[in-house]
Amino acid sequence: LKKTSRANHILKTFGKWVICFFIGVLVGVAAYIVKQSVEFVNEFKFKSSEKYIEDGHKFIGFLVYYAINVLFGVLASLVIIPVGQIASGSGIPEVKGYLNGIRIPQSLNVKTLFGKLISLVFAFSSGLILGPEGPMIHIGSMLGGAIGQVKSKTLKWYPKIFWKYHNDRDRRDFISTGASAGVAAAFGAPIGGVLFGFEEASSFWSKQLTWRTFFACLIATFTTNIILQGFQMQLHDYGVLTFGFSTQYLYRYAELVGFAFIGVLGGLMGAFFVYLNARLSKWRSNFFAKKKIYYRVLEVFILITISSSVLYGASSFTKCRDTNAIIDSSTDNVELSNSTMLIHFACPENQYNDMASLSFNTLDAALRLLYSRSTNVFTVPTLIAFTIISFSLTTITSGLMLASGLFIPMMLIGASLGRLVGQVGELVFHQISPPIDPSIYAMVGSSAMMAGFSRMTISLAIIIVELTEGTQYMLPVILSVMIAKWVGDIFNESIYEHLMEQKCYPFLPTQPPKSKIKMGITDFMKTDTVTLHDVEKVSRVIQVLQSNKHHGFPVIERPQDDGTRSDNDVLDDYGNKLQYDEETTYSGLILRHQLTILLYYKIFCPKQSMPLNPRLTGGSSARKYPQRRWGRPTDYGHAPADSRMNYELMTQSLARHFPPIDKMNISKDEIENLYIDLRPYMNLSSIVANETFSFSETYQLFRTMGLRHLPVVNKKNEVVGIVTRKDLL
Amino acid sequence: LKKTSRANHILKTFGKWVICFFIGVLVGVAAYIVKQSVEFVNEFKFKSSEKYIEDGHKFIGFLVYYAINVLFGVLASLVIIPVGQIASGSGIPEVKGYLNGIRIPQSLNVKTLFGKLISLVFAFSSGLILGPEGPMIHIGSMLGGAIGQVKSKTLKWYPKIFWKYHNDRDRRDFISTGASAGVAAAFGAPIGGVLFGFEEASSFWSKQLTWRTFFACLIATFTTNIILQGFQMQLHDYGVLTFGFSTQYLYRYAELVGFAFIGVLGGLMGAFFVYLNARLSKWRSNFFAKKKIYYRVLEVFILITISSSVLYGASSFTKCRDTNAIIDSSTDNVELSNSTMLIHFACPENQYNDMASLSFNTLDAALRLLYSRSTNVFTVPTLIAFTIISFSLTTITSGLMLASGLFIPMMLIGASLGRLVGQVGELVFHQISPPIDPSIYAMVGSSAMMAGFSRMTISLAIIIVELTEGTQYMLPVILSVMIAKWVGDIFNESIYEHLMEQKCYPFLPTQPPKSKIKMGITDFMKTDTVTLHDVEKVSRVIQVLQSNKHHGFPVIERPQDDGTRSDNDVLDDYGNKLQYDEETTYSGLILRHQLTILLYYKIFCPKQSMPLNPRLTGGSSARKYPQRRWGRPTDYGHAPADSRMNYELMTQSLARHFPPIDKMNISKDEIENLYIDLRPYMNLSSIVANETFSFSETYQLFRTMGLRHLPVVNKKNEVVGIVTRKDLL
Repeated sequence: LKKTSRANHILKTFGKWVICFFIGVLVGVAAYIVKQSVEFVNEFKFKSSEKYIEDGHKFIGFLVYYAINVLFGVLASLVIIPVGQIASGSGIPEVKGYLNGIRIPQSLNVKTLFGKLISLVFAFSSGLILGPEGPMIHIGSMLGGAIGQVKSKTLKWYPKIFWKYHNDRDRRDFISTGASAGVAAAFGAPIGGVLFGFEEASSFWSKQLTWRTFFACLIATFTTNIILQGFQMQLHDYGVLTFGFSTQYLYRYAELVGFAFIGVLGGLMGAFFVYLNARLSKWRSNFFAKKKIYYRVLEVFILITISSSVLYGASSFTKCRDTNAIIDSSTDNVELSNSTMLIHFACPENQYNDMASLSFNTLDAALRLLYSRSTNVFTVPTLIAFTIISFSLTTITSGLMLASGLFIPMMLIGASLGRLVGQVGELVFHQISPPIDPSIYAMVGSSAMMAGFSRMTISLAIIIVELTEGTQYMLPVILSVMIAKWVGDIFNESIYEHLMEQKCYPFLPTQPPKSKIKMGITDFMKTDTVTLHDVEKVSRVIQVLQSNKHHGFPVIERPQDDGTRSDNDVLDDYGNKLQYDEETTYSGLILRHQLTILLYYKIFCPKQSMPLNPRLTGGSSARKYPQRRWGRPTDYGHAPADSRMNYELMTQSLARHFPPIDKMNISKDEIENLYIDLRPYMNLSSIVANETFSFSETYQLFRTMGLRHLPVVNKKNEVVGIVTRKDLL
Repeated sequence: LKKTSRANHILKTFGKWVICFFIGVLVGVAAYIVKQSVEFVNEFKFKSSEKYIEDGHKFIGFLVYYAINVLFGVLASLVIIPVGQIASGSGIPEVKGYLNGIRIPQSLNVKTLFGKLISLVFAFSSGLILGPEGPMIHIGSMLGGAIGQVKSKTLKWYPKIFWKYHNDRDRRDFISTGASAGVAAAFGAPIGGVLFGFEEASSFWSKQLTWRTFFACLIATFTTNIILQGFQMQLHDYGVLTFGFSTQYLYRYAELVGFAFIGVLGGLMGAFFVYLNARLSKWRSNFFAKKKIYYRVLEVFILITISSSVLYGASSFTKCRDTNAIIDSSTDNVELSNSTMLIHFACPENQYNDMASLSFNTLDAALRLLYSRSTNVFTVPTLIAFTIISFSLTTITSGLMLASGLFIPMMLIGASLGRLVGQVGELVFHQISPPIDPSIYAMVGSSAMMAGFSRMTISLAIIIVELTEGTQYMLPVILSVMIAKWVGDIFNESIYEHLMEQKCYPFLPTQPPKSKIKMGITDFMKTDTVTLHDVEKVSRVIQVLQSNKHHGFPVIERPQDDGTRSDNDVLDDYGNKLQYDEETTYSGLILRHQLTILLYYKIFCPKQSMPLNPRLTGGSSARKYPQRRWGRPTDYGHAPADSRMNYELMTQSLARHFPPIDKMNISKDEIENLYIDLRPYMNLSSIVANETFSFSETYQLFRTMGLRHLPVVNKKNEVVGIVTRKDLL
């Protein structure tokens, strides 16, 4: 809302780029920390455990594995306690909610940031089936919010150069950028990150934002890469999964039927997952509501016990297979050799355990194996078992009190399912040559499963393409994503919508709710509007601020004050106690924060010293206006600002926190006898709805303009109500 | 603006998907037609010409080549004459303008579609340096517009099922989808197509649109592929340019300096191109303004003469090189062998002419050669010469009277420039091993050059990635695109902004113009607003419609009509002739088209027969409203609709064209004695600005809500002016 001069404008824009650069760097570093520490812990865990297994001490091996899992899992959970529950889970509902315009306390502060980061590293090392991407998105947005507005409430340190970014719009943009950079760094997918921000995370998006976010995403990906690889010559980009070409063929068009089938499966299983998870979350929140928080740590402990036992147990009961029998059909000479990722478990040299390669392995390695172009790595029973195991474990794991995401688990389930379909297809159509390549089915399965639970579309397709570093398989990927989304949408909404509903966030989706579509604005607006007069008594301002929690107040004009106005002149529900003067008309909107600032700096005036601007208080013929030139009409009202409170001080003050009103030291005399002139400070350009507006138009206004308050006026321009986000749900 | 019941809503949404499917298919077919016919003509041309060259008859060879070029070039130009100049050029400014809300006559009709398609096929075969992508975008959007609203003015055929899509928003969306599908089909880049639509073409974009556009883009790409390849097993996706991995390395991080340098060069040359082209266009429009249209055909003839001579001549003066000396460093076993694209020209067997391989070849083949991983195909002098030649020829070609685009030419110039930088770098740093790979520089050069002239960012990067079928080189591509855009932006705006400015399209860019930023709404609004009364005389409606060309009229409420109102009650500039009754307030907005419909169907009433709705004409206390339920408040006003004109008939009629008013057969008696009740039909939810609004808020409203008219009211809710798009520029 604030406009600055041209030089300031350029400086401010440049500052945004610098901030985006730092968002990128820090998110990249955070992603590196997560990746590197997890790798370190996992290597230690599997190495220690394998030592015993190779010697035949399977049970001791399990104990070592289990002990390390419990240690990290419980730590991940304990970290959450001092920080607050907001740091557990993926954080995507919180980010989506914030970017939709909902204030969620604590959701984006520094304490949550560190809690989440530490919990994520521990949780990801605990042998549970969970991923780092969701939390990385939350961490990214917290970094975005923090860097854009460097300040410290505790240190009372409010650096001046960041003041200009202390407004809703800029903060929202930086948080969007951070969320996108989180995706970019986690997946190594800069374009996927931008599209995620646009498609899934944000509700408001502009072209400038696209461009800056793209920059931040690139920096984030690049930072992670550079730290991981150093500055040496590159033989390969750091791609999480490299796919390469097949020597045989890409795919037959007839196989699109198979990919479509996987799409249907992904949609069904995704919807089923959402259903189960929503039920489970509900049960959890009821069950733990009145229990001590340590019960939630106990839950983590139990889940790790189940998880470790099942994954380890499944490996123990699987037969060994010969390593040499694997046929590699990839042409990609830079692909990492799969054999290094295959797990021997209790098998002799030159043999491997195919279930252990999935379950007793890092999720990354398991995923790579499922995507490997080697056609006969896994047996069909192994894939069936692993699909069921991973689906079940993911369902019960998601919602635990630790930082956890769903992308990698869903990719794993999908890859296993897809590969299964591919291998069964190969068995059924074994006479055709060249044979069906199950690895493509694994990739398509991942896409379908991810689309099934998250209902993302284009951003998902791009993330998959960037992950697998090739556009050759884009058609199958997109096809399965589309079908999975359609199928899933028949049954329920995405997991994020469900979580937000459960957490009671008033999220405004793109489409208005069907139930209200025939309403008029007067059917759902609040009629207990609290209005202020343009020159208002200090006592009434204080009374209004203390008696309700509204954030915006319509300001009305009253040409003549006869002094009889009571301080309780507030409308009750349905406006039965209307006490407006006949001639009061709407003139602007003022925010709670602005009123607090005016009180804090005591911008008071005696009643008569502030005459109304004669050019504006008279009649209303258009003739008067063409000469009007008083600059910045958005910033200032139609009266000269008080010399004690100029534009700059107001802007700067908006970035600060002020003490509560009763600690402000305003004397009784000031309260009772002085006035505040709101006219220079109120927003004259705030949009107003007519009482004839329809619901859908109002909804559209809120969504596209990002409104928080919409005063409703009647034919005579008198305020008859106000609409806020909650009225639209 | 129209809301339908739930079942209708689902049907309408499903219909949109079906329409998008057909848009995809038809755009795909159109792309196939262009590609296939051009390939056919070019093969014929080069084969016929080469026959003579091989026999030593160089001059006869030239004549054959030249004659075919002239034939097709002149045909391409002649086709434009009956269709109109709107079909020449790329059409991107027209599409951008339309999607920004500007009505450009003829720009999207069926005649232009066919004219453009035919002209494109001919022009692309004429040996001029021009590309098919821009025209394909125009063709795509014309198909989108046509399929969404199947109707025929000449046949008076208005199929009923398409009526529901006959509104600004749906039409705009289908045109966006078509434009995106055009990019997707032309480049084989479905995601690039969607992003092009979002980033470059459209001014209004929604998430639903993303998702449907993605579908259409996929169908378009797929259709082209299937027709080109048939349903057989695929060895390779139809990618325009396949890049593959290098056996040596991807790139060194130090090489990013080189890529950044190319970015700077691309930005400079792009900006220079825009400058030259803008000057040349201006000169052209002045020079040809008063001349006969055949001079423009003559211009094409002259340009083909220059172009053919230069390209052929350059080939003639170049030495032969040995084919066996080429070192191929690609690992991609499916890449087409470069040697088949190398041109012998006058060289003996086993030798080739490197200049002819660029200039005496299709642009596609030349581009592929420039991107080839073979390190020593071209000599440095050849690349220098070709960069200069292609830049000069593109500059003078763009703007000719035939369908032509700039993407492929710019890629060619950039590739040549980039490869040059790469080869010079190789010479300078010849001691390092492995040597620098110039092919990457060629790709980066293309990206930089395209960013330099079009200032596209993320969509461009994705198009390049999809074209080259690999994400490995994304970082260099993005880096060069960013730098080229930044550098270019220092000097001027993109070519499209320049062309739109020159064609006087009132385009509203994302950022408001700096010059007006301090204005208030009363400084730039039109005050000669023509208002109508809610129950208005037929005579005055007719007089208003005939005396001006406005598209929207504010409707005002006047409780009492004393019958003395004159028919000329229109405000002149600066509102000096205000004749409002004191009590007239704004109540809604009605469109010209709606008034025409009401006149055509004679929805007249005698003065007294339509009482005002007592529930709404009284005072304005909020108490009355919570009970209000009369459904669809957006569609209907606060009075019962006339039985002769229900909601359905109004919707259907909005899709039709009506005869001019003087041919409507309204009797003199009707005109003088009857009234039209506008209240049931006017839009009650139209946004209104307060006269205290600032310029930037108003601009924001227009841009994000896609407004065309914004009535301005004063404190008493009286209309004091109206803002249209043109007032914002």
